[in-house]
Amino acid sequence: MTANTPADRLAALRQRLTEAGVDGVLVPRSDEFLGEYVPESGDRLAWLSGFTGSAGMAIVLMDRAAVFTDGRYTTQVAQQTDAILWERHHITDSPPTAWLRANAAGRRIGYDPWLHTEAALARLAEAGVTLVPLAANPLDQAWADRPSAPATPVEPHPLAHAGVDAATKREAAAKILREAGQAAAVLADPHSIAWLLNIRGRDLPHTPLALGFALLRADASVALFLDPARVGAEARSHLGNAVQVLPRDDLPAALAALTGKIVRLDADATPAWFATSLRAAGATVATADDPCRLPRATKNLVEQAGTRAAHLRDAVALARFLAWFAEAGPTGGQTEMSAAARLLEERRRKPLFVAEAFPAIAGAGEHGAIVHYRATPESDRAIAANEVFLLDSGGQYRDGTTDVTRTVWTGPAAPPAELADRYTRVLRGHVALATLRFPAGVAGPHLDAIARRPLWDVALDYDHGTGHGVGSFLSVHEGPVAFSRAAKIVPLQAGMILSDEPGFYLPGAYGIRIENLLLVRTDTGRFLGFETLTLAPYDRRLIAVGLLTADERAWVDGYHARVLAEVGPLLDDAATAAWLRAACAPL
Amino acid sequence: MTANTPADRLAALRQRLTEAGVDGVLVPRSDEFLGEYVPESGDRLAWLSGFTGSAGMAIVLMDRAAVFTDGRYTTQVAQQTDAILWERHHITDSPPTAWLRANAAGRRIGYDPWLHTEAALARLAEAGVTLVPLAANPLDQAWADRPSAPATPVEPHPLAHAGVDAATKREAAAKILREAGQAAAVLADPHSIAWLLNIRGRDLPHTPLALGFALLRADASVALFLDPARVGAEARSHLGNAVQVLPRDDLPAALAALTGKIVRLDADATPAWFATSLRAAGATVATADDPCRLPRATKNLVEQAGTRAAHLRDAVALARFLAWFAEAGPTGGQTEMSAAARLLEERRRKPLFVAEAFPAIAGAGEHGAIVHYRATPESDRAIAANEVFLLDSGGQYRDGTTDVTRTVWTGPAAPPAELADRYTRVLRGHVALATLRFPAGVAGPHLDAIARRPLWDVALDYDHGTGHGVGSFLSVHEGPVAFSRAAKIVPLQAGMILSDEPGFYLPGAYGIRIENLLLVRTDTGRFLGFETLTLAPYDRRLIAVGLLTADERAWVDGYHARVLAEVGPLLDDAATAAWLRAACAPL
Repeated sequence: MTANTPADRLAALRQRLTEAGVDGVLVPRSDEFLGEYVPESGDRLAWLSGFTGSAGMAIVLMDRAAVFTDGRYTTQVAQQTDAILWERHHITDSPPTAWLRANAAGRRIGYDPWLHTEAALARLAEAGVTLVPLAANPLDQAWADRPSAPATPVEPHPLAHAGVDAATKREAAAKILREAGQAAAVLADPHSIAWLLNIRGRDLPHTPLALGFALLRADASVALFLDPARVGAEARSHLGNAVQVLPRDDLPAALAALTGKIVRLDADATPAWFATSLRAAGATVATADDPCRLPRATKNLVEQAGTRAAHLRDAVALARFLAWFAEAGPTGGQTEMSAAARLLEERRRKPLFVAEAFPAIAGAGEHGAIVHYRATPESDRAIAANEVFLLDSGGQYRDGTTDVTRTVWTGPAAPPAELADRYTRVLRGHVALATLRFPAGVAGPHLDAIARRPLWDVALDYDHGTGHGVGSFLSVHEGPVAFSRAAKIVPLQAGMILSDEPGFYLPGAYGIRIENLLLVRTDTGRFLGFETLTLAPYDRRLIAVGLLTADERAWVDGYHARVLAEVGPLLDDAATAAWLRAACAPL
Repeated sequence: MTANTPADRLAALRQRLTEAGVDGVLVPRSDEFLGEYVPESGDRLAWLSGFTGSAGMAIVLMDRAAVFTDGRYTTQVAQQTDAILWERHHITDSPPTAWLRANAAGRRIGYDPWLHTEAALARLAEAGVTLVPLAANPLDQAWADRPSAPATPVEPHPLAHAGVDAATKREAAAKILREAGQAAAVLADPHSIAWLLNIRGRDLPHTPLALGFALLRADASVALFLDPARVGAEARSHLGNAVQVLPRDDLPAALAALTGKIVRLDADATPAWFATSLRAAGATVATADDPCRLPRATKNLVEQAGTRAAHLRDAVALARFLAWFAEAGPTGGQTEMSAAARLLEERRRKPLFVAEAFPAIAGAGEHGAIVHYRATPESDRAIAANEVFLLDSGGQYRDGTTDVTRTVWTGPAAPPAELADRYTRVLRGHVALATLRFPAGVAGPHLDAIARRPLWDVALDYDHGTGHGVGSFLSVHEGPVAFSRAAKIVPLQAGMILSDEPGFYLPGAYGIRIENLLLVRTDTGRFLGFETLTLAPYDRRLIAVGLLTADERAWVDGYHARVLAEVGPLLDDAATAAWLRAACAPL
């Protein structure tokens, strides 16, 4: 059977389910690295359903199938999947567990133990289904023309950007294991491995990773499971003698050798395959946080200096783009894709730029209301006069990762009063968070409401978190902290970087989002505060100045003055400089 | 050995520990009902250490002993306990687990399985000690003159106040059990039993409870374990045939009869004795929330009407007290205790008043900085001119429970500017929370920061939650919701009542706290908001009007106008009426 249409693919998968003796199968969006971005070879959900969003899952039964996504993707999933084949559900309002209970209670549902954590499986098991681990993934068997997995060279991440050498990091992490009486830790998160060993790669288009697994031992040695052919002489020398590089096929034997040992793994972020294999080998599984996660999130002073430098270069690229767009946007026949391409072109000229940190979200008019819209040749549309254009983009620079959203009004007419009211409420929430001072112990979920209040006041809201952690030349969406009620309670600490990006979306009409990155800094006594890293003016035409308090207005004016003072001297063209001066004038 | 001094008592306990074969013992503040208020017969911590606060625990080893309390009691514990005998620790900054690890690793530490939840024991076990359940509490053996436990009559709580009859409540709770396949639920919380069976009692001075345990079965029948002699004819008839009253000695046999059954209990709120006994009987313990907890917290329309009526009567008592205090406070030789007694006298005159909801906190000057100060004949002090007086008090009325704090300036001079600044920041936080509108799904921990921001802005804070749940003629501190970062994530729902009580405390100088009760109400669409229940003017002399935003000032003026309109017509003396008019004039 060829499997070229969505219906063909679903039929091919169902045939394999019959052969595997199960009544259904879970198809998560994640691959075995459980990250947000997956290479094409691992994007089973997109192959099967057509849905290309960054989060979601499908469940396929013999007679029905459903895809579950969050509020960011409600519109997109409806556009990308075939309603004849797929039910579409909001993942929290109508969760997979409830759907399984209603449609598959008592049935045998297969899953690939490489693609799910034990914690996630335990939640699904509450549906009253029998979850059956499958030795081979039936979807992979049905996927005839599956691309091969990426295998780019491992690249050293130099001390000048990392700030702390890998031997010091390994020793600190190993000390945590020794103190807990653990012989080893499974490192299932490629971001943690990248951070710990100061290595990067290009397996993914937007996150500089070499995808692999690792075992950290209590003696600070590491076994890195990844094709040794990917490690050239320089990387081999960089890794040092305490790091052994082994083919992934050696992983089962390495776990089997841990008989009788206590092995740490993060139950929320490790494929169930690991715990199952360790228990089968007679090891004791100690579930605890990935020991690299918190140190990775708290950037050292070199990383902090790096991200400031990267943000300044990014700000120059953005200023040049915005100045150009102010002229070309409404009148020059630009489209969402051509505008995003122009900004990428500006970023590419900057030193240390490697790649976009994620596919830019460039949404004109009603496309802006699709929270994680990605313009394609089919959806791309001209940008018109007198509409809203939302551009959310970022860069991976060797010294830091940026992520910035600006919402602009194309003009030339003044924007409608309701639009300016909404924009100003989003801006007030954004400023309320950026200017917050808070004591040690406070976590992201405690602060999400601060940014929403101006919208809540008029019974409006947005269906996404207020902000996410950001890596240091690593993932633009980095755990464990987030300004989100759904995030874990992890106290904010100096050195953490988070985005501050409230929004408002009127489906079919427009989207507003304003995003800066914030660096957590020590303040007075036991208090912490934020340093704003992003340097780009807000669109003054959209600000209803009368709705700002005196303090808010002073903050915006001060921020704009700072943008002008820091970015202005780096501009080498008069047109951009003139635009920036005007954009940064007091309100 | 007589045990009349703190040193004698500690020595007597240590002798019993040797006899019991343990190296130490846990002495929690709770009795077997795990509530905030314990009768004298159950207040082991107070007998042993002298500390009378409402939360804390002690750990006694052979060579050292420590008492752990939270920030409300830092000052009090230092005053009440003997530093020679007791180390004093802040329970979160220097927790019992860390202390045990440092001082008792590897040792055998005894505990009374009636006084700890399994969840709490599991946390303590992380200290690397061996926790040993003791069949007899060694402290009780040492406590020669221990009072007998209270045993007041069980009183019906009539439908006119309860709103829903007990049979309907039992059936709804039993349905939860049936749907979960559970044969019975342990009800270890006397508040839940009181709510479920519409009964009250007077075992505790401030919470109208009959202390006992119960088993709710899936057929909606209940076994209530409490001396049957306490149930008179009227109460017996009120309980009905589906409720069996049994002596507490019958409890072990009742659990033993549950062999092979699935029995629900709340692991966070049930003595470990229950789960141990059930497992020993061959029952399966299903840990889940107390099925009465959420329905108890969401007050029905009759309870809501009742609490409004109770608050209005309470407001009249408070207005008469405040009007009197405005004259008598600074000049009339009043003390903290005499002022609190005067307010209680006013409340006692009100219909349906039963008791104070908690011992009033009446703190003049530096005593106000002791968050849960309780004036005693030894500590009582005269209230002077030109100082701050903090009065936190409440009433148990048959139709509702009140809890209100007002902080007043005695005058006649104007208060210092810094004091007014602090008071105004506390007021702004109080108003920010009271006026919040928020979508369904938001929980108390997400909103705590809203009330703190005006203090955080100047690097100040308070070391207690912003607010707690309040019962309906039940506990003034009722779970599961609270405006506190330490509370569980339980979404707020219409009908819940919480306090809104930010504060600021300058040790050695003064305390400020402003508290109203808020009722959660539906608002626009899926949004919720609050109705302020408490009706009492804020002290206008302490408000720095220039620090309020226009919206805040308008809210205070509107609230004062409402207080005058609702309370004014109920006043029958001209002096109070005149005072209220002045107190409620626009700022």
